[in-house]
Amino acid sequence: MVATKEIDHATELDFMLTRMQDMVIDYIRKGQEEKTCVVNYHSPQELYKVIDLELPTVGSGIDGTFELIKSTLAYSVNSWNPRFMDKLYAGTNPIGVISELLLAVLNSNAHVYQVSPVLTLMEIEVTKAVGQLFGMGEKAGGLLCPGGSASNLLAMITARNKLFPSIKSEGYFPRPHNVNASYGKLVVFTSEHSHYSIDKSAQVMGLGTDNIVKVPVDDIGRMKVDELERLILTSIKNDNTPFFINATAGTTVLGAFDPIREISAVAKKYQCWLHVDGSWGGTAVFSDKVKAETNWFDGSQLADTFTLNPHKLLGVPLQCSMLITPHDGHLLFAQTNSLKADYLFHGNPYDLGAGTIGCGRRPDATKVFLAWKFYGQQGLGERVDKALRSAAEFTEIVRNRKHFKLVCDPSPFLQICFWYVPESVVGEKKYNVVMSKVTRELHRRVNQSGEFLVDHAPLKGVPDFFRIVVNAPTVSLHRDLERLLDAIEEASVDVDWSLLMSDV
Amino acid sequence: MVATKEIDHATELDFMLTRMQDMVIDYIRKGQEEKTCVVNYHSPQELYKVIDLELPTVGSGIDGTFELIKSTLAYSVNSWNPRFMDKLYAGTNPIGVISELLLAVLNSNAHVYQVSPVLTLMEIEVTKAVGQLFGMGEKAGGLLCPGGSASNLLAMITARNKLFPSIKSEGYFPRPHNVNASYGKLVVFTSEHSHYSIDKSAQVMGLGTDNIVKVPVDDIGRMKVDELERLILTSIKNDNTPFFINATAGTTVLGAFDPIREISAVAKKYQCWLHVDGSWGGTAVFSDKVKAETNWFDGSQLADTFTLNPHKLLGVPLQCSMLITPHDGHLLFAQTNSLKADYLFHGNPYDLGAGTIGCGRRPDATKVFLAWKFYGQQGLGERVDKALRSAAEFTEIVRNRKHFKLVCDPSPFLQICFWYVPESVVGEKKYNVVMSKVTRELHRRVNQSGEFLVDHAPLKGVPDFFRIVVNAPTVSLHRDLERLLDAIEEASVDVDWSLLMSDV
Repeated sequence: MVATKEIDHATELDFMLTRMQDMVIDYIRKGQEEKTCVVNYHSPQELYKVIDLELPTVGSGIDGTFELIKSTLAYSVNSWNPRFMDKLYAGTNPIGVISELLLAVLNSNAHVYQVSPVLTLMEIEVTKAVGQLFGMGEKAGGLLCPGGSASNLLAMITARNKLFPSIKSEGYFPRPHNVNASYGKLVVFTSEHSHYSIDKSAQVMGLGTDNIVKVPVDDIGRMKVDELERLILTSIKNDNTPFFINATAGTTVLGAFDPIREISAVAKKYQCWLHVDGSWGGTAVFSDKVKAETNWFDGSQLADTFTLNPHKLLGVPLQCSMLITPHDGHLLFAQTNSLKADYLFHGNPYDLGAGTIGCGRRPDATKVFLAWKFYGQQGLGERVDKALRSAAEFTEIVRNRKHFKLVCDPSPFLQICFWYVPESVVGEKKYNVVMSKVTRELHRRVNQSGEFLVDHAPLKGVPDFFRIVVNAPTVSLHRDLERLLDAIEEASVDVDWSLLMSDV
Repeated sequence: MVATKEIDHATELDFMLTRMQDMVIDYIRKGQEEKTCVVNYHSPQELYKVIDLELPTVGSGIDGTFELIKSTLAYSVNSWNPRFMDKLYAGTNPIGVISELLLAVLNSNAHVYQVSPVLTLMEIEVTKAVGQLFGMGEKAGGLLCPGGSASNLLAMITARNKLFPSIKSEGYFPRPHNVNASYGKLVVFTSEHSHYSIDKSAQVMGLGTDNIVKVPVDDIGRMKVDELERLILTSIKNDNTPFFINATAGTTVLGAFDPIREISAVAKKYQCWLHVDGSWGGTAVFSDKVKAETNWFDGSQLADTFTLNPHKLLGVPLQCSMLITPHDGHLLFAQTNSLKADYLFHGNPYDLGAGTIGCGRRPDATKVFLAWKFYGQQGLGERVDKALRSAAEFTEIVRNRKHFKLVCDPSPFLQICFWYVPESVVGEKKYNVVMSKVTRELHRRVNQSGEFLVDHAPLKGVPDFFRIVVNAPTVSLHRDLERLLDAIEEASVDVDWSLLMSDV
């Protein structure tokens, strides 16, 4: 017989939580302090020397494991520090941590209602409410997916299965196997600046990356709609079948918003599915100010599917991504994507897993639901507004500072992209090549100091540049953003630029 | 300028964690008590009445949100209760909760080394170590994916891209677009009892569910290898291209293990990729006893890819799934699946995201790493052994109890599948139809009482039956498992079986 009395999880966890609480509060406090580094940077080879990463035969118990957790905190990136400006996500917040703790304790699975009744209703309600923010009407709703790429993939699969239902069972291979197939090569349209997950989705689905048409963009990175239509016509002329148009709401590098309303007219004309990848910019819809003063979401209710990631701009912990549709909410996905799995699904329309491409699922909706409950739509909208204000102010500072040059002016969204141009590089013959080297060298120096974590990015036709993401609500213009410019300047002081240029 | 001093996340979280700790410890303690229900069952319509699921414009702050958390705990399934035996996962354990709390605080992203140095090395080390358990050699390793279905999908994509590299760019559409294509319809082979994620993967990839060949199984659910070879030959004769064989290590309903070594010989002969879906049974490899006394993993080092889910049998919190390969570890996936995404990947082989079909990723490897550190391979193996002992003992009890009848005897793994056959149903003409109704009615009654949460399952040729999963290390033979049989009997007392049968 199996002993049970020996296992008392409640008491053990109580002890461990108390010990953990001290460690994490101390960690977060350090992240808030002015003088703490974002990361104590080590290469993989160095890191192996300072942390014991061997997996033991005999367990290390509480003490050994807490030692490892301590080291993990010590050598990880402290995302509570607002000077972590490297990626499109920032640190989370208290309710974010609490919601993850709740999910851990529940250890629930959002695939069938029977095992996750409350969390299932939260998912239905929060996706419906987001649909309302876009003005998608009463039948809007959706599903949570494990990341923006997964949401985009689910959108593309749904479009294919809805427009060409025979593919679900027959596959493509239309000729000579099926001479009556009503379609040619399936072709996807997306802008040159869109995220690579659109390409990945197409290659996963066996459409081939050659069949993704990249539509040119204007000078601030927005899709050119006349070019889109021209390219669709060319595709049709070649006997191909355009079926999916992706518009981006907040591009990865520059932060551009494609004109959704105009694109939707083209999509309708050529019977294409209109998807919006708003993984980055989509949650700006929480701000009433954004909706009143920009045209970013104009026409978004005309999209067939819309991706947005509360884990980016809203501070919800990674991962939290949703795919929203005005067409019957999560039932659209179940109708187009479900396969018979009798052992699991017994026909309940509240079983959300039926519409996904997976089976078991983390109940990620709970996290955005609790964030919304805690801050309200207003609080989340204010976070967006604050980030936009900081980005505008920082853009102005960069614009006015000697040696710094903006890539886009004004910054389209929350990425501030710029070059630091040393005196000696001005007028250089191979300017683009040299400036890319300058950026990469300064980037390496700034990041390795650990004071900041920022990224650099490439773009066709211009040298690599710094891409600074203003997202954390704790970021300070003077303490953090101006200081970053100082740090870049300081890093440049002892670089021998002539040596760098001689390499080119 | 943006105010920063007003935001003190550390103090706010400290307060909230203390309050949360009391609630969750109380919750877990209830799950440990004999008299507590697994779930206070409510239909969606009822649940809407007892919980406020409206999403507010103005935030509810700490008090309002904690009120909601309290209701969420009250109406959710308490998976700490060992009488939750419905699915292949059970409740988690203290180190599981602590690891989720750590991940929440770090809010890290395991796509590039720069933002997740420690967690990246943990993923590399733990996948390598699991590869060693299978005897896959020094070059073994892998990646974490968001669930077993996602791991299986990544395996199938990798196989296709590796065997037919042109598909990545060209897509399928081989004729007439490419008369030189070296392949016909791509065909997948998997057993009749395998998980539906194999079918979903194929439909996602546009292979069509018609091109999945279901191989017959023997009387305890294992793939018949002679049938596999016969079906491959038929497929080749029809000008199709068999390319992917999925063996299952622990089927979803019965818990059967396909004979990997024999299947691998067929895979080699016909140049197919051999994948093993060990989402459920794969982690039994942690038990030395299992390796010594069963042939479940015999030949597993010959698989090209192998899925296993520590979130099922090892008690790691959902989601934690890994895809292991002996061919160069995670680098195999990067080589076959990566697309150019210069803005993110700057060429570091430690950037694990390059091999996935996504972009941002939860660092799920950390959770299995910490569980291994805490319990050791031995402790995790003992959990497996204990579950197997309980399953064997429970099987014996069911075998010897009047009115109960086992579907498989002995139980192949940790699922105990059986019927309760009321006296009046014995010898019934439409036995299968009637018995399915009996099972479903008893299942409904047992679950709605809230004392247990168990599942029923269908299988070709036999009536629906109860499927009880023995997984939780806290399960007691007498208190929980024998009591379940009592509860089923009690539930049957006031059912008018003749009424049920007259319906048929």
